[in-house]
Amino acid sequence: MYIHIDLEAEEPIYTQLKNQIIAGVARKDLLLGESLPSVRSMASDLGINLHTVNKAYQQLKQEGFILIHRQRGVVINPEGIPQANDEYRKNLQKSLHPLIAEAVCRGVKEEEFNKMVKAIYEELNHIKEDHE
Amino acid sequence: MYIHIDLEAEEPIYTQLKNQIIAGVARKDLLLGESLPSVRSMASDLGINLHTVNKAYQQLKQEGFILIHRQRGVVINPEGIPQANDEYRKNLQKSLHPLIAEAVCRGVKEEEFNKMVKAIYEELNHIKEDHE
Repeated sequence: MYIHIDLEAEEPIYTQLKNQIIAGVARKDLLLGESLPSVRSMASDLGINLHTVNKAYQQLKQEGFILIHRQRGVVINPEGIPQANDEYRKNLQKSLHPLIAEAVCRGVKEEEFNKMVKAIYEELNHIKEDHE
Repeated sequence: MYIHIDLEAEEPIYTQLKNQIIAGVARKDLLLGESLPSVRSMASDLGINLHTVNKAYQQLKQEGFILIHRQRGVVINPEGIPQANDEYRKNLQKSLHPLIAEAVCRGVKEEEFNKMVKAIYEELNHIKEDHE
């Protein structure tokens, strides 16, 4: 999977890396059980700091996206990504709330918002279909 | 408007304050031109640091939600909140993308996602109707 880091972006590099791996899993570019480069080689491939990769990997591990084995290395969770539970839904609601409050203030109606959501769902699915 | 700060939350206090003011505008609990407490009195009301309030206010000012007058104090932008433009839509898309990618990984379908969006739009609108 191709990972692109924008060193000029406001978004922290570890967040960019983490989000691209999650998007890769969503698109099935990254399959369950698939290996990721070690911290060291990911850092060297992307030209970023070891600690930055480590931070992304540690968060992905905590959130159930990857396993980090001492010997087998880093793999996408072969058991599957933990499915949505009440806590996750509550946090998702908390993350969406300020985005929607701002959208309301700026005149973005529910219909337009849903279209943006739909476009993102489609983008994540289309790319998966291309690969299958 | 009642503002509640959770000092134990992971979310930074300035973000909580900022988001609650934006939600207040979305709900029309805060009307255009309405005064907000000064930095000093907001900080004292909420028992938080002056710099924290200042950071929230500066960001709200930059994003066009409030004006800060030396004499007239802090007011919700009487000209109205700047409406969505291409840059805002692009940023909203960027903020939504990782939320949806994670939702896909955790088995949240577009239909369920849209229901959460709908519930938030309704919550923001209902409270407005109660006040009118």
